[in-house]
Amino acid sequence: MALPPLETTQYSVEDGIATITLNRPEKLNAYNAKMREELIALFDETDADDNVRVVVVTGAGRAFCAGADLSSGGSTFDRKADAGNLSREALKVGDVYRDGGGTNTLRIYQSLKPVIGAINGPAVGIGATMQLPMDIRMASTQARFGFVFARRGITPEAASSWFLPRLVGMQTALEWCMTGRVFGAEEAHERGLVRSLHEPDELLPAVYALAREIADNTAPVSIALTRQLMWRMTAAPHPMDAHRIDSRSIQARGESADAREGVTSFLEKRPAEFPNKVSTDMPDFFPWWDEPTFK
Amino acid sequence: MALPPLETTQYSVEDGIATITLNRPEKLNAYNAKMREELIALFDETDADDNVRVVVVTGAGRAFCAGADLSSGGSTFDRKADAGNLSREALKVGDVYRDGGGTNTLRIYQSLKPVIGAINGPAVGIGATMQLPMDIRMASTQARFGFVFARRGITPEAASSWFLPRLVGMQTALEWCMTGRVFGAEEAHERGLVRSLHEPDELLPAVYALAREIADNTAPVSIALTRQLMWRMTAAPHPMDAHRIDSRSIQARGESADAREGVTSFLEKRPAEFPNKVSTDMPDFFPWWDEPTFK
Amino acid sequence: MALPPLETTQYSVEDGIATITLNRPEKLNAYNAKMREELIALFDETDADDNVRVVVVTGAGRAFCAGADLSSGGSTFDRKADAGNLSREALKVGDVYRDGGGTNTLRIYQSLKPVIGAINGPAVGIGATMQLPMDIRMASTQARFGFVFARRGITPEAASSWFLPRLVGMQTALEWCMTGRVFGAEEAHERGLVRSLHEPDELLPAVYALAREIADNTAPVSIALTRQLMWRMTAAPHPMDAHRIDSRSIQARGESADAREGVTSFLEKRPAEFPNKVSTDMPDFFPWWDEPTFK
Repeated sequence: MALPPLETTQYSVEDGIATITLNRPEKLNAYNAKMREELIALFDETDADDNVRVVVVTGAGRAFCAGADLSSGGSTFDRKADAGNLSREALKVGDVYRDGGGTNTLRIYQSLKPVIGAINGPAVGIGATMQLPMDIRMASTQARFGFVFARRGITPEAASSWFLPRLVGMQTALEWCMTGRVFGAEEAHERGLVRSLHEPDELLPAVYALAREIADNTAPVSIALTRQLMWRMTAAPHPMDAHRIDSRSIQARGESADAREGVTSFLEKRPAEFPNKVSTDMPDFFPWWDEPTFK
Repeated sequence: MALPPLETTQYSVEDGIATITLNRPEKLNAYNAKMREELIALFDETDADDNVRVVVVTGAGRAFCAGADLSSGGSTFDRKADAGNLSREALKVGDVYRDGGGTNTLRIYQSLKPVIGAINGPAVGIGATMQLPMDIRMASTQARFGFVFARRGITPEAASSWFLPRLVGMQTALEWCMTGRVFGAEEAHERGLVRSLHEPDELLPAVYALAREIADNTAPVSIALTRQLMWRMTAAPHPMDAHRIDSRSIQARGESADAREGVTSFLEKRPAEFPNKVSTDMPDFFPWWDEPTFK
Repeated sequence: MALPPLETTQYSVEDGIATITLNRPEKLNAYNAKMREELIALFDETDADDNVRVVVVTGAGRAFCAGADLSSGGSTFDRKADAGNLSREALKVGDVYRDGGGTNTLRIYQSLKPVIGAINGPAVGIGATMQLPMDIRMASTQARFGFVFARRGITPEAASSWFLPRLVGMQTALEWCMTGRVFGAEEAHERGLVRSLHEPDELLPAVYALAREIADNTAPVSIALTRQLMWRMTAAPHPMDAHRIDSRSIQARGESADAREGVTSFLEKRPAEFPNKVSTDMPDFFPWWDEPTFK
């Protein structure tokens, strides 16, 4: 897949791990329309490239992402103001402009590859909410977080009202969004938003070590199915919903060359070499859902 | 709005913060039909009064609420026994008497203002379950909690089976409701029911400090929308459900005078003065749901 | 109810507490088709026997359950391979073989009695996922856990994608299933999978003490209703769903001899003797749901 020229992000793949770097360091990686588009294109790329087993997202310089670019001042969030950096005709559906952050988090939600956030510094507004559909967040001790929307006169976006309570429970989600307070890495860790804290220099090595643990030991098709199973079933009404898909998945994967290799290599106490690929070997029943459209 | 004469509660508003005090201290604030009615009326009042930015609920004397008033003895929970303090013709729908506690928790669920529980002492039965739809619970070190229903031969009420697992996870919710045990503030805090513990004298000051943080820094209409977004979307089947509302909300709020003031004041490093009011400025798309009725 | 001869499990009932012991110690209690059948039969028995107030599940020897019996090697999970220990014509519905582990976890989900897992040692694969619909998990310090499916080329089963995030949140559920890592009791406890850790010799005494707390203090019909209320409502879309059932339940239970005894004994400060039985006294509105079928 041909990526467009990247103006607000950097992208690299090394030894199975893709790194997406938010790259407007002079603006603390503030989010704008171009970054929104590039993130969509990059997750299309990571899904399509079988060489990518895990995706890491981090920020260039001292911030992760300081939030929406406020250079349009008071009209920043006004979709009808021409000057708005975030206004995008491409987001208009009927009379409604889709929330740009939501198009990114819904895209990450659909990712076929695990996504790890390496939160290297301040992450505020969309910089905080864009992390929520990532599978795991690891943070620098210098990271800071803020769901500041109510202090700017707007509301939590990027589908964060769906994601955040599933990560930290209702009480913490409500407190963070109702105070709009900026808080430190320690609080983010204690309340469960962040998996682990690391000294600034040790963050990326720790993130890559976890990424390697996934990439070196697991079957790519199994991981793609697992990711969607977990995210889809967490909101399903009954465990029977999971059982229906599990049954098809265990049947299809159980017959696969991957399962044969997975069990055999385990019994032989050697590393597995899984032959199936996400690009060609997803089972027939996938996807088992109709993705809802915006309306 | 004219409040009825209050017999079982007290109500005051100071500097944007309403305090509802359960006020039957000689009965450890035991819950009865009158208290049920007054709580409904008080939350109608806090929603309607633009001067109220945050609602605090606490108990007079040494208890928060010791549970249902048991002065009718063994027939306390018998809806058809005339003597029952909790029996209420007003709760009858067809052949079913609505659970009184549930009418209170559903009303709090619908609140447009943040609700903080200041749990000053024992909170048992309905005294424990009425807290669950509050946004944040802070407790005295002398608080005690008990979901004692199975010990009385009845079942958890006030929609607590919906609320409690969202606050403390399934394992703790099940343990508390299946043992019916009364437990201390420490356990409530460790398991996530309570946000923070405070010495008895320091509880209300800490609660008011958090209430001030909300009232002094955020836009009232943003908070009302945020509260409903979070509570409604936590049970939605797909993040697209949140994205649809987010998009309308960011569009409507982004054009608002509040958003202009919120961003401008931030850039000017001064406190914001938000002009929009809950009574008159909720956006057109609100409410976006049809509230289900009892049946 | 006549239990079939037990080949892979042991069963005993003492003083109201049933113990199901996975009993293939020479195979680390590896799961096979016979164990699947026996577990179904045993939970039918515990539901039907009014003498059983609480169910404890543990493993014989040094393991809880080391996962699927892999003696068929690479074709272990191949439902169409004759040799598969887990293949079962009984599981075939149309063209799909139901996942065997899911038939067990769905059966436990429907249990009318509280279920406590006493995780005495390694619990891997189905040995980890079969615990998830249990109400409480207590573990030996020597327990180990692994959601290893992606390392074997298959996917998490037994409806674990529905259960696991409700116990430990999305971030931990994803990390465990995406790395497939085997981890210790300490991590299981810290992340909330396990309620408490115990020295190996002290595990069963602690489990039985908690079981006694339930059995000695609560009404059996209240507990059966409570268990289903909590598990069913945790995934309901609106607290009104709980309120509808609560209202019927408080009405039916409020009139019951159990409620009369529960309140009277409390006021008289004596132990309650609850007369109602699960076999004969479940209220008319139970079950209030249509159990979904496999399709």
